[in-house]
Amino acid sequence: MAETVAEALTRILPGSRVVTDPESMAGYRHDEAEWAPYGEPAAVVRPRSADEVRTLVRYCLERGVPVVPRGAGTGLSGGANALDGSVVVSFEAMNAVLEIDPAERLAVVQPGVVNDDLRAACAEHGLWYPPDPASSPWSTIGGNVATDAGGMCCAKYGVTSDYVLAMEVVTGEGEIVSLGRRTAKGVAGYDLRGLLTGSEGTLGIITEITVRLRNQRPPERTVAGYFDSVVAAGEAVSAVIAAGVVPSALELVDRHCLAAVDAWKNMGLSADADVVLLGRCDTPGAEGEAEAERMLECFTAAGATWAARSSDQQEADALFQARRLAYPALERLSPVLTEDVCVPRALVPEMLARIERTAVAHDVRIANIAHAADGNLHPLIITPHGDEEARVRAQRAFEVILDDAIALGGTVTGEHGVGVLKKRGMNSELGPAVLAMQRAVKNALDPHGILNPGKVIDAEGAEDVPVG
Amino acid sequence: MAETVAEALTRILPGSRVVTDPESMAGYRHDEAEWAPYGEPAAVVRPRSADEVRTLVRYCLERGVPVVPRGAGTGLSGGANALDGSVVVSFEAMNAVLEIDPAERLAVVQPGVVNDDLRAACAEHGLWYPPDPASSPWSTIGGNVATDAGGMCCAKYGVTSDYVLAMEVVTGEGEIVSLGRRTAKGVAGYDLRGLLTGSEGTLGIITEITVRLRNQRPPERTVAGYFDSVVAAGEAVSAVIAAGVVPSALELVDRHCLAAVDAWKNMGLSADADVVLLGRCDTPGAEGEAEAERMLECFTAAGATWAARSSDQQEADALFQARRLAYPALERLSPVLTEDVCVPRALVPEMLARIERTAVAHDVRIANIAHAADGNLHPLIITPHGDEEARVRAQRAFEVILDDAIALGGTVTGEHGVGVLKKRGMNSELGPAVLAMQRAVKNALDPHGILNPGKVIDAEGAEDVPVG
Repeated sequence: MAETVAEALTRILPGSRVVTDPESMAGYRHDEAEWAPYGEPAAVVRPRSADEVRTLVRYCLERGVPVVPRGAGTGLSGGANALDGSVVVSFEAMNAVLEIDPAERLAVVQPGVVNDDLRAACAEHGLWYPPDPASSPWSTIGGNVATDAGGMCCAKYGVTSDYVLAMEVVTGEGEIVSLGRRTAKGVAGYDLRGLLTGSEGTLGIITEITVRLRNQRPPERTVAGYFDSVVAAGEAVSAVIAAGVVPSALELVDRHCLAAVDAWKNMGLSADADVVLLGRCDTPGAEGEAEAERMLECFTAAGATWAARSSDQQEADALFQARRLAYPALERLSPVLTEDVCVPRALVPEMLARIERTAVAHDVRIANIAHAADGNLHPLIITPHGDEEARVRAQRAFEVILDDAIALGGTVTGEHGVGVLKKRGMNSELGPAVLAMQRAVKNALDPHGILNPGKVIDAEGAEDVPVG
Repeated sequence: MAETVAEALTRILPGSRVVTDPESMAGYRHDEAEWAPYGEPAAVVRPRSADEVRTLVRYCLERGVPVVPRGAGTGLSGGANALDGSVVVSFEAMNAVLEIDPAERLAVVQPGVVNDDLRAACAEHGLWYPPDPASSPWSTIGGNVATDAGGMCCAKYGVTSDYVLAMEVVTGEGEIVSLGRRTAKGVAGYDLRGLLTGSEGTLGIITEITVRLRNQRPPERTVAGYFDSVVAAGEAVSAVIAAGVVPSALELVDRHCLAAVDAWKNMGLSADADVVLLGRCDTPGAEGEAEAERMLECFTAAGATWAARSSDQQEADALFQARRLAYPALERLSPVLTEDVCVPRALVPEMLARIERTAVAHDVRIANIAHAADGNLHPLIITPHGDEEARVRAQRAFEVILDDAIALGGTVTGEHGVGVLKKRGMNSELGPAVLAMQRAVKNALDPHGILNPGKVIDAEGAEDVPVG
């Protein structure tokens, strides 16, 4: 009888790397994208080096087996979902911070390092790794780079790709290469480092990452505002932007989210508001004071029912912690289909109004969290467990929201990635000529089609690759 | 008799677009890269719209004619050099600032807009376009994007690619496409916007650019220091970095450069020093004061023969103006081969020491300017007019400096691009596996090989394309 994929990998890789028992493998079949299709992997591998990744990729190249790299599985678009017969590569055992260099202000890490762990390691040197997705207590730098993750401080400090200096990658040809550089600048050749960032494992498998760091920043000032409606809160956001304030965070959280967090963590958050805006400024000195005051004025002028500077750091931190926990808190209660549209900042109120209309038109409940200063909205479409009709309505609403974002000059995904859930939306956003360029790039760097096939972009002429 | 390329373009494009008389065409044959080979174009076109660019690209596709896009021709690697029989596309007539949107903090420009003109237009709205190559009074945003130009404020504010949100491009298939987006964030598909930035016209021809803007910043503080040697100045740079200061500029200029500027502009600059360091801080308030003081202490501790905070803004501006003029001032006097190596910041003294040794070993005169806080050094190899032996020694020294930069973990080009002068160095830096990826990307997006062929990367198996 022919050797199975799992048997072959067990033979060619050191002991304990290959997981084959169905119960253990079950946890590696999908990420957190609701209702995104997934399949049954042939094996799960937990490599400990780039060499081991190369070994497995070369085997998969020979046999035409799809390879699906995976971070912590906190993704929300299905990018890490297993394909039938694929090898899932989990980087949980490659979780070392290899180097922190204060002089060059950079860190070198393995892909499995958890985002918050890197931030903590940097803080010991007075340095700061800014990108802070809400999943930062769980998600890994490898996954963050693969999706070009955003977060709360993006409005002022940019996204993951702004911090990736270099990466080691196992290519679609089974080679280990270094892309990018350790220097502050460099333009020798095309920016493959940038191209791989956000490519969701479809152009190469990242085995080491060098990130740029900043100096630790001064403490932030927090401004909170309560509003009667998401649209009113959206108007406050527009006012802040129009006032020229660049907040270090400006998060929108609605009462559904706060209630869900309270029900889970008992944080005593039940605000007397439909929507809370949480703003932060970290500019030092008088300039920062003035920024916080201007933000407060914008909240008030836009009709906040209550607004104040927070004098209590613990209270302020609790509010941001609640924002961070909103998604898992809701997901505990029922299936949640998570949007990630991003629109021009000035159109945040219009987009929020359209989302409300979509909820009514499709008879679905939509909670809202948002990185409001970026125009990056996360409407969360909530359905009762096991309600098939609600699921269908939710999935229709999901696509309508994507189309509305495109119609407003926005994008279907600000930071979560395309995975499988946003392919239709992306195709609609980019159009055929750009899609052809995307496909040409995919074919150039994954000529044998084994790197996370069917994610982000389909092979030329291919129907969607079956995933379940 | 068959129609010539120039005749055909004159026929298919509106009047006055096509330049064919040899005298006018002569100015379009090359950029400012010394001794970089160039050829005789078949025609020069000055289009006024993306449609016209598409028309000429489609003609060139049909006929297999190379297309060489060109900004202001201030490039230093030969990227804009004409190929024999090529069509040079100059964007001088597409020089409109199309839109400045203060709410979204972005500007939309045609490629021919001069860098300083965009900065001035933004300032009227209280906004700032940071990337400031020394060529900013002449170079264009199109050229800056094509080379991913850096400049003086990079150490704190990043390079051109950090500010490119979107671009309109005529592709290697003759299509007009939009890459990137106007929103603050977006990850729908591979980052082709980033890939095209810095691709020197080899992956597409950029016909419109949307750039991210920042708020105007507070006035900078200036600190100047005189040093006895470039290596001593390099030690001061390392000290500034080690102290955790992030300067808004930290420029090194040696006496050769200052003397050349003085001889040209009579600015009264002849400093009593071999090397001058010019540092700036723009952090507001007390924090900024402390930064400037720390920088001053670093200069002094590293052995500055004189160092002081500048209390005279005019004097400070004159010093930076001198820095900006250093290259053209030297080039006025004799041929200058310009390096652009970038090394890890802490290795700036070592790299400067190696450059001095190379000057001695190859019997060439090397002046130095540097974006020191980035580790981005511009040794300028100066030779007497018409001295063929000196030219050969200079070209050898040029390659030795590239190899030294690679040996120190650096890159052969921090911001000028590969063009034709750095191809050998880039090949050595990247290695065969990464070069194969670069070539695959080139072939994917320029399948017919008409986009600035022979620049950056050679076609598979091809010898260098003849350029003169």
